[in-house]
Amino acid sequence: MAVNLARPEAASLHPVAGVRVGVAAAGIKKPGRKDLLLIALDPGATVAGVFTRNRFCAAPVLVAREHLASGSAIRALVVNTGNANAGTGDDGLARARKVCAAAAAQLGCRPVEVLPFSTGVIMEPLPVDRIVTGLPAAAAALTADAWLDAAEAIMTTDTVPKARSARVAVGRRTVTVTGIAKGAGMIRPDMATMLGFIATDAPLSTAGAQAMLAHATDRSFNCITVDGDTSTNDALMLMASGAAGGSTLEPGSLAFDAVRDTVTEIAAWLAQAIVRDGEGATKFITVRIEGGRSVEECRRVAYAIAHSPLVKTAFFASDPNLGRLLAAIGYAGLDDLDVAKVSLYLDDVLVAANGGRHPAYREEDGQRVMKQAEISVRAVLGRGDARATVWTCDFSYDYVKINAEYRT
Amino acid sequence: MAVNLARPEAASLHPVAGVRVGVAAAGIKKPGRKDLLLIALDPGATVAGVFTRNRFCAAPVLVAREHLASGSAIRALVVNTGNANAGTGDDGLARARKVCAAAAAQLGCRPVEVLPFSTGVIMEPLPVDRIVTGLPAAAAALTADAWLDAAEAIMTTDTVPKARSARVAVGRRTVTVTGIAKGAGMIRPDMATMLGFIATDAPLSTAGAQAMLAHATDRSFNCITVDGDTSTNDALMLMASGAAGGSTLEPGSLAFDAVRDTVTEIAAWLAQAIVRDGEGATKFITVRIEGGRSVEECRRVAYAIAHSPLVKTAFFASDPNLGRLLAAIGYAGLDDLDVAKVSLYLDDVLVAANGGRHPAYREEDGQRVMKQAEISVRAVLGRGDARATVWTCDFSYDYVKINAEYRT
Repeated sequence: MAVNLARPEAASLHPVAGVRVGVAAAGIKKPGRKDLLLIALDPGATVAGVFTRNRFCAAPVLVAREHLASGSAIRALVVNTGNANAGTGDDGLARARKVCAAAAAQLGCRPVEVLPFSTGVIMEPLPVDRIVTGLPAAAAALTADAWLDAAEAIMTTDTVPKARSARVAVGRRTVTVTGIAKGAGMIRPDMATMLGFIATDAPLSTAGAQAMLAHATDRSFNCITVDGDTSTNDALMLMASGAAGGSTLEPGSLAFDAVRDTVTEIAAWLAQAIVRDGEGATKFITVRIEGGRSVEECRRVAYAIAHSPLVKTAFFASDPNLGRLLAAIGYAGLDDLDVAKVSLYLDDVLVAANGGRHPAYREEDGQRVMKQAEISVRAVLGRGDARATVWTCDFSYDYVKINAEYRT
Repeated sequence: MAVNLARPEAASLHPVAGVRVGVAAAGIKKPGRKDLLLIALDPGATVAGVFTRNRFCAAPVLVAREHLASGSAIRALVVNTGNANAGTGDDGLARARKVCAAAAAQLGCRPVEVLPFSTGVIMEPLPVDRIVTGLPAAAAALTADAWLDAAEAIMTTDTVPKARSARVAVGRRTVTVTGIAKGAGMIRPDMATMLGFIATDAPLSTAGAQAMLAHATDRSFNCITVDGDTSTNDALMLMASGAAGGSTLEPGSLAFDAVRDTVTEIAAWLAQAIVRDGEGATKFITVRIEGGRSVEECRRVAYAIAHSPLVKTAFFASDPNLGRLLAAIGYAGLDDLDVAKVSLYLDDVLVAANGGRHPAYREEDGQRVMKQAEISVRAVLGRGDARATVWTCDFSYDYVKINAEYRT
């Protein structure tokens, strides 16, 4: 029941030269479903990553960070669903390392050249033997054009696989960007998605890839929330094979910016897809805060609205109980906010101004907007020039149902 | 369906000399239900209050603060349910003042000696004429022993009236404390309840009453959360008539402390009653964080757990999906938390230590505790001596239902 999010056509997902993906059904949580993804990179690729800031971050996050920090040339990424390998202590670290060793043996590289990723239930031992047993099938399946399979293999409570592809001309060459993501609950910044993988054949240095990824993340995965819970396993990776040819793109150059904007566009699409497929979501809501003193305070107000269970249940009910929006703005922590200067809009409808309901506001106008599947909330704070946007979804019976029954 | 919370016996609620309460059915939202409460204080009473910190605080909050700050001797409090008079701008202020003027006319005092309170839907004009029309009936009903009626008259989505009474010996005299509260959603600190009124016949100065109330609030209403939404109308008032006799109790004296502890006990009971009757609540959960560097950081961790929709839906499902607790501790914002030093207990069951599940933990032990109606979560951070406790409830289908259908 995702909001305006269709299953992508496999043909719309362009192969990325120098990057191959292969999936297998390893029986990690349930038998017979694709739950293991192997991504293989040709020699010379660079990889950048951003990770969850949760202190109880998962074992694979720790290992992936360590392998990236070692400066090794990354040759493979292994992703399993069905188990997060989080809250598992030293034993979890040992299991994540075993996965790297097994993948390295398959591909003929060193374990430190492999990055592990896990998603699923927390605080259960990772069934590492099943992953090791499944890896040869994933390796045998490696191909350049299985991105839809890859997107499916990393799903947990997602109802739609999330994948997107674009091409951009860079001088006389064409650069391809293809990304996949998963995540539907336990979603909030910093690092909102649970897992995202974006591949490009552009030639990038490691520092260039990292800068590009930071730019994209700030405009995509760090602008979404489903339930305010920051996951233990969030990771977003950018892999650049360089197979498009040409010399390394330098940050600040027009060519770099063209690729960066395409990567950002793909990242934003994937991040929004995660919200559209948010657990139990029936509405897609864009919260735009303007007229703040800083981006940071605009984000605080936007997240106060986007995290309020009262606001989210009102959206679910299509009930223009819009005082709840004012209340959320009021408790966002801007201690010197002058509420008389705040204006609140629902799409194009002016709801509140001068500290209260606008005289021209009519309930039926609010009702009309609330019934839409896509709604924009806009608040103008009247105290500066900064702005920020956050994307979120409503809060329905199904959110409770999905999360109450998650392990059954 | 409140959790272990019965309707109080009227006979258990002691009258407080010098304080009378009267209710009426003013038809503010629905006809025929008690929705208006008048509290009348004999001359010489002192009144202290703490209010919401929401910047979109309601018109009655602004007026009540103004009247208290004027130093006038407060003679009456007027409380209506069915409409919050919040997000109503200057017009809302004018309506709140009209309520004070009408109550003053009834009681033969000045409008500045009256404090107004409202609770209910936000951003709708207060039907002030109905309140003015209803006030004579409330005044005619004034009596010392209608505290259960009073508790009923301030209910909104509450399912049980909340009232509690106690007596304490102070030297050769007996002091009585009787309090009522309401609130079931839009509940979080600072100032968690929507409305609470505690009366005592102890003789207190205004400064003494304010200090006593701050002490009590910090150990009661500021320790609860249902949904993380800070209301626009929260107010907790302490009224001290002095009718018990004797000289004014000085802060720091044994007599003052005895009354203060009784007021705190009543406030804590009322605050917990609000959680037990939280919208859709099926479990009452005590979150105790120990071993922190400061009370503030312990509270941050406690609220991260208490606000997590994933944690709350797991409690609703009686599912010991306890990794969600670790995840919430991990994202509470303690950037230098050493997760290897954290221990997590569910009642007496040691769940996690050394960064992961404890080897002795067994799912059936977690399951046993999760099935209880009252559950204690205890996390020891291992980095200091501070501690804090927060009370909350689970998150059920009914929370969504109640809030999706609130205005229908």
